[in-house]
Amino acid sequence: MTEIHEPHHTENVQDHLQQVQHLLEKQALVETVAHQQEMPRAERHELVEKLLHKRHLTELRKKLADLHSADIAYILEALPIDQRLLVWDLVKADRDGEILIEVSDAVRESLIATMSGAELLEATEQLDTDEIADLAPDLPNAVMHEVFKSLSVEEREQLRSAMSYPEDAVGALMDFDMVTIREDVTLEVVSRYLRRFEELPDHTDQLFIVDRNDHFKGVLPLNRLLVNEPELEVASLMIAETIKLNPDDKADQAAQAFERYDLVSAPVVDENGKLVGRVTVNAVMDYIRAESESDVLNLAGLREEEDIFASVWKSAKNRWLWLALNLCTAFFASRVIGLFEGTIEKFVALAALMPIVAGIAGNSANQTSTIIIRSLALGQITPANARRMINKELAIGAMNGLVWGGVAGMFAYLLYQNVMIGLIMTSAMLLNLLLGALAGLLIPLSMQRMGRDPAIGSSVLLTAITDSGGFFIFLGLATIFLMN
Amino acid sequence: MTEIHEPHHTENVQDHLQQVQHLLEKQALVETVAHQQEMPRAERHELVEKLLHKRHLTELRKKLADLHSADIAYILEALPIDQRLLVWDLVKADRDGEILIEVSDAVRESLIATMSGAELLEATEQLDTDEIADLAPDLPNAVMHEVFKSLSVEEREQLRSAMSYPEDAVGALMDFDMVTIREDVTLEVVSRYLRRFEELPDHTDQLFIVDRNDHFKGVLPLNRLLVNEPELEVASLMIAETIKLNPDDKADQAAQAFERYDLVSAPVVDENGKLVGRVTVNAVMDYIRAESESDVLNLAGLREEEDIFASVWKSAKNRWLWLALNLCTAFFASRVIGLFEGTIEKFVALAALMPIVAGIAGNSANQTSTIIIRSLALGQITPANARRMINKELAIGAMNGLVWGGVAGMFAYLLYQNVMIGLIMTSAMLLNLLLGALAGLLIPLSMQRMGRDPAIGSSVLLTAITDSGGFFIFLGLATIFLMN
Repeated sequence: MTEIHEPHHTENVQDHLQQVQHLLEKQALVETVAHQQEMPRAERHELVEKLLHKRHLTELRKKLADLHSADIAYILEALPIDQRLLVWDLVKADRDGEILIEVSDAVRESLIATMSGAELLEATEQLDTDEIADLAPDLPNAVMHEVFKSLSVEEREQLRSAMSYPEDAVGALMDFDMVTIREDVTLEVVSRYLRRFEELPDHTDQLFIVDRNDHFKGVLPLNRLLVNEPELEVASLMIAETIKLNPDDKADQAAQAFERYDLVSAPVVDENGKLVGRVTVNAVMDYIRAESESDVLNLAGLREEEDIFASVWKSAKNRWLWLALNLCTAFFASRVIGLFEGTIEKFVALAALMPIVAGIAGNSANQTSTIIIRSLALGQITPANARRMINKELAIGAMNGLVWGGVAGMFAYLLYQNVMIGLIMTSAMLLNLLLGALAGLLIPLSMQRMGRDPAIGSSVLLTAITDSGGFFIFLGLATIFLMN
Repeated sequence: MTEIHEPHHTENVQDHLQQVQHLLEKQALVETVAHQQEMPRAERHELVEKLLHKRHLTELRKKLADLHSADIAYILEALPIDQRLLVWDLVKADRDGEILIEVSDAVRESLIATMSGAELLEATEQLDTDEIADLAPDLPNAVMHEVFKSLSVEEREQLRSAMSYPEDAVGALMDFDMVTIREDVTLEVVSRYLRRFEELPDHTDQLFIVDRNDHFKGVLPLNRLLVNEPELEVASLMIAETIKLNPDDKADQAAQAFERYDLVSAPVVDENGKLVGRVTVNAVMDYIRAESESDVLNLAGLREEEDIFASVWKSAKNRWLWLALNLCTAFFASRVIGLFEGTIEKFVALAALMPIVAGIAGNSANQTSTIIIRSLALGQITPANARRMINKELAIGAMNGLVWGGVAGMFAYLLYQNVMIGLIMTSAMLLNLLLGALAGLLIPLSMQRMGRDPAIGSSVLLTAITDSGGFFIFLGLATIFLMN
């Protein structure tokens, strides 16, 4: 975690990427030219090629050596597999670990696949135990075995602890880079103690105060250390009543605490009151970003992040579950229509109008469920106000049903000059929008009650209901009122 | 920005909310009982009511006084309007400003609507200039005029500067709480200087080094101040090559820099090299959260965040633009079907099958555009690799078309015992999935090229294309191959 490379200006990352791509293209050109040469002059050309080739690669290696690990990670993610692996080979081995931590899961897989056990072991040696824990799921068992052997007893304990928490627990966000002090010393003593460090861990905005059994007593913000007189005692300045996280808390709760109280770091204390680690704002920010990305991906039915240069086959598999599910619900809706083929045969206008009924209700139901899922995530829905929300969404559904159903009914009437078809259209829209509002409310609420994430899978169920329901209501009403 | 109230444990916020709701209900009960009393005993009951009423309100006021402003903001958001305004009245006036900063835009509006000009002016007096700038769009002009008059010349300058940047610029995230030092002093002098502060601004992880003209020279991390000997000079320890933001940079770029380089604060330097402010990680985190929320809301066609207790009318308006747009595209798709009424009349099975063709392609196109929009946001799509991505998505579209089109064709054949209908189904699925992939690629890419946010409005266009296109392809093929 040594910060060798100070990052420069923000705009440079895209520039870096383009420079790297440029060098890679030049090199590819040299290779192409070399391959096109006639056989007789092969030897000479091979020489030229090697020289040129080397020149670009040297330039590239130099370029990469200047970049921050996070920027290299970014570049690796934006390069197609062949170029990615070429660049990966040029990166100094002593930064492999840092970079593997930074890249996305999908790209990490593609990089690790090319590394030998020895290389992987070497890469983990550069990492803190909490970082090794992040990498662990992607490492072969044999390598993890070696890693454990190479660690000190304390580090093994840390690694075991970090690996024991599920991905969405505070324990998984935690690191062990804490500076701890005792409460019965003066600030002067603390300052002298700190001067013995090479450097403080990143994101040290407060020191943790523990007793000799590692029981957490409070925190001393650096802020207070800096503005107070050196002869004061830690005990007189420390904050005992501070935010404490439990390693088993949900990571979401920790994220909300960081956002709400603008924290930079927070102590993690177990149920016995022992300080076991800390969470820093950068881990929280990564978590928030990953969560919001997976929300967007899940909404589109993508199971996981895609390496944009993964094979067609691999990407397709990522998308299939969703399409298969949708195909099933579409077949079902199709059979609902099939029930009314007799009616459609007589009034073929119904076939043209029915997708409108299904579509608008689907969109409206989706709006309702988005609001509900968001309120659930924020914990704003309590038994005391759930009823109010239900009433409100039903009222909106009814209002939208009358307004847009009215418009659609008018459209149908004008088009087919049939009052009955217009009335059926309006009633079906109203009923289906109410059905959609009800589904948009109840599906997320009951998924939450069953302990499932309401953001995943709500939409496929919703569409199934508004499609099949819409066709059934519309064609059913038409059969009753037109077919006699 | 004085932090009077230390927040406690993370889990407490929901508990706080429930306690407040409980107190509010008890109070409501007292009021109901009092109102039901007979007239004769009115006086006695009025007395009782006042006493009881007061008791609960006193309890509530005490409860609120103990809470962090961010927690009060959370509670206000989760309460229906009448209770919200009651609680708002009980909050000590000297915290109004802080709380207004914390609540969501929609709720802020409802609170400000109940405040007099004098109250609003008082509320802004508690705030820093960058916070006043955040509030400014919601304040009446007369109040803003008074606010300006009450500020010092320097503060007016800051406020004007903070208000001059668009919401998505670094300038809008910036604050002015910087601690600046000169480079030619020793750490000892810096430490003595810091001891003169009451407290350092939140998120001070580094001091900014400027010359006498406020030109930015570099930063001194507190980390370095703490671990080095007091006699060393600032110049020998400062970092000159550090991340600098420009107030006109996109906030997105700043957010990426904070995530990538794990920053806590960063200097904002104008084009003349003058230090004008700083951005802190909490402002960035709020920005990221707000962005990801508006992404999810926009996907569902919600124009803005909804106060969950806003009137039905207000919420409905938030959702109408989207539904109106969808109704237009649905009408269009309906007219496409209308073109083929003759064919449907003869082969009514087509009416049952056509929604499948449209639906699956819509979902698949949505997956493609989600991937593209994400890659665009990360800056991973460059001219060098755009072509590859296009080829890949078309290949996935073709593959999905063959697989799922094959399944759907088989289904159609088995159901209607007609080989031709099966073949038409498969071909239509294949063509519509390719059309969807193309649209899912080209719509976000061209919106980006036109300088618009590809996340907004892509999906309504996509659905319009896959619906109308799907109906046209399927019914068109059917007309050609079945009607002769």
